[in-house]
Amino acid sequence: MKIAMLGFGNIGTGFYNEIKTNYKDIEVAKVLVRDIKKTRAIESEKLTADFDEILRDASIGTIVDVTAGEASVKYITGALSASKNVITANKMAVSLAGGELIDIAREKGVNFYFEASVGGGIPVINLFNENVKPHRIDKVVGILNGTTNYILTKMADDGIEFSDALKLAQQKGFAEPDPTFDITGLDSAYKTTILKDLLFNYKCGAEDIFCQGIDKITRADLAYAKSIGYQIKLVGYIQNNASGLDIGVRPIFLPSDHPLAGVKNEYNAIYIEGSPIGEIMLYGRGAGAKPTTASLIADLLRLKRGETNMFNNAYEHSRLKKQQMPEELKSQSNYFRFTVLDVPGVISKITAAFEKYNISISSMKQDISNSNEPVNVIFTTHESKCSKIPKMIEEIKKNKFIISEPVWFKIGI
Amino acid sequence: MKIAMLGFGNIGTGFYNEIKTNYKDIEVAKVLVRDIKKTRAIESEKLTADFDEILRDASIGTIVDVTAGEASVKYITGALSASKNVITANKMAVSLAGGELIDIAREKGVNFYFEASVGGGIPVINLFNENVKPHRIDKVVGILNGTTNYILTKMADDGIEFSDALKLAQQKGFAEPDPTFDITGLDSAYKTTILKDLLFNYKCGAEDIFCQGIDKITRADLAYAKSIGYQIKLVGYIQNNASGLDIGVRPIFLPSDHPLAGVKNEYNAIYIEGSPIGEIMLYGRGAGAKPTTASLIADLLRLKRGETNMFNNAYEHSRLKKQQMPEELKSQSNYFRFTVLDVPGVISKITAAFEKYNISISSMKQDISNSNEPVNVIFTTHESKCSKIPKMIEEIKKNKFIISEPVWFKIGI
Repeated sequence: MKIAMLGFGNIGTGFYNEIKTNYKDIEVAKVLVRDIKKTRAIESEKLTADFDEILRDASIGTIVDVTAGEASVKYITGALSASKNVITANKMAVSLAGGELIDIAREKGVNFYFEASVGGGIPVINLFNENVKPHRIDKVVGILNGTTNYILTKMADDGIEFSDALKLAQQKGFAEPDPTFDITGLDSAYKTTILKDLLFNYKCGAEDIFCQGIDKITRADLAYAKSIGYQIKLVGYIQNNASGLDIGVRPIFLPSDHPLAGVKNEYNAIYIEGSPIGEIMLYGRGAGAKPTTASLIADLLRLKRGETNMFNNAYEHSRLKKQQMPEELKSQSNYFRFTVLDVPGVISKITAAFEKYNISISSMKQDISNSNEPVNVIFTTHESKCSKIPKMIEEIKKNKFIISEPVWFKIGI
Repeated sequence: MKIAMLGFGNIGTGFYNEIKTNYKDIEVAKVLVRDIKKTRAIESEKLTADFDEILRDASIGTIVDVTAGEASVKYITGALSASKNVITANKMAVSLAGGELIDIAREKGVNFYFEASVGGGIPVINLFNENVKPHRIDKVVGILNGTTNYILTKMADDGIEFSDALKLAQQKGFAEPDPTFDITGLDSAYKTTILKDLLFNYKCGAEDIFCQGIDKITRADLAYAKSIGYQIKLVGYIQNNASGLDIGVRPIFLPSDHPLAGVKNEYNAIYIEGSPIGEIMLYGRGAGAKPTTASLIADLLRLKRGETNMFNNAYEHSRLKKQQMPEELKSQSNYFRFTVLDVPGVISKITAAFEKYNISISSMKQDISNSNEPVNVIFTTHESKCSKIPKMIEEIKKNKFIISEPVWFKIGI
């Protein structure tokens, strides 16, 4: 079996070494890189900067794409159109064009596999296709980003602030020098839309779903969550309601006895509820060269065995046309933190706003004030309409005693 | 697609209803039952007590076996030999004859699938085949029996004794009137050998592996475990060591922050360590009509899609001949509880035995004595040779102050 690789970074190197060591019958014949002059842990004659050279080589039947970024869509389109199988780890490509790429593969009689695009070494794509998709799925909730889960774990367990936890993650190699893509939730949004595409007949991109990041979370939020029996986790979620899909990425208060609550550090997990399957969860390493390599190889061996129909299984449940649930129908319990100057009238002004917008308070807690230091005022609410919350926050923010952006998180999943 | 069923109990009824409701293109044509006179939630003309009638019906291509017990092996052999696909939920049949049944299926060009035989609704078989088996697997540890996990959870969380937890499990329908098969660990042993067969080239039956049940565990053991940061869980384990497989079923002290430690009540989970896959865990409902139905249907849809090669993927790692690790090479940390009469000399006599057998004590704790009540003396040990432990226990048991069977559990996984 002769294959080509696109990219030779951290994951590419790991994949190449695993193939060389353990799969003598698979030959990496060519590797597309930007700069063929750079010294790499591979024979330089295998390197090429010319994608067409790979396309023209009829002996190469399969291309393994370990590039990042949107350009990958063009490469994959080209490779499938040239009747080559493609295996990719690129979540952006799959999220942006997965459906179209599967269509091209089907038309050309080749295969397009992407186990490594979500959940790293966790075989979530195979599982969704073979064991989850056939059933009525009510809920998918995933800790899909190792960087943010590592940061939140360190903040919760070691009582450190976001900026210190981020630094630690960067030192450990779990966060990029520019962590924006992870901490804003965008990485999780890409992965969430891929999972959505596997299960539900509703087209949308990562930018079309609700997305809230973790950068406003403080250790005070995590400590409060813990004190009432919750963990804060950044999750991608798809709730399959009668009125449509509630889909997005957000930090949520997860009950401490929920199986996802035990998922710590850089680990990922995907939790599913449906019928008759019940609750299932998959847990593992969501990133890194080795776990990603494991998933790329699982796809490669699937091809080698001659499996050709991974995505030809559309079931009744997943064929039903879906849409997003209208915002005005959503309701949830919430956590709010307002960081305020400790002046008279704060609580009455905030509670008046809650009352005006008909959001029912279930608990309130105010920190002890140290003279002129700002204090946190925390509210939890009963289940309330989500659509009114942004307006209420805007109104509360007009008060001069509010000294930073209020935060609000959903309680429960 | 026309299928026949073997058995129509709790799981059979659940499976039949799901097919009738959600899979209009699959027809259950015949059902083998012992007593065709008994009224069941199915048209009586579909019932037959004659297996040959099903075999002779050329329109039936697939047989779904939801019987329990060893007789299933004969039915499956007959069905495969008659060139019919077989899907089974019967762990005993798969453990006893899985390899031979796969061989018959291959020879006849049909398929033998058994997703439902381990882990109920958790797609562990598919996953092991497609995503785990290709890689070097170092360790498999599974909470494979919902009954015992429910009992241990109730004992640990509610502080009740084994007998009360068992009664509760029976009331909830999580334990059989005769719970022997579950609490002795035998059910887990069957499932452990199935997982072993999927990954390692070593033949043995459930009776050939180490097997320790949970009936001697008391709430004192669970409370002590908790106090030093552990949970006691009954696990099936396969450790792939250079000197052979360490395989068995036993209650172990599992560190509280291990992902398996959070698996509560009737849930099951399978945890795997390997390279390059890293650590992965699957969690879900390990028994019951609905989850088992989900797995049966996943297999059925696999057939319907025309997949025919589920078990044709033997990789280098799994082809290597293995054997069990010799007992004298095994070493581990341990927990010991001796329930004793509170007379002078107890501690010195027990510790003398530890010394004689070269088992190094790491901690000791003796309950406060209430006059003539027996007390628990608990020891933990550093890593020590396992082979000496039974002898040491026999020697300690000769002391008259020992009033019940000593217990010892492995600490750590």
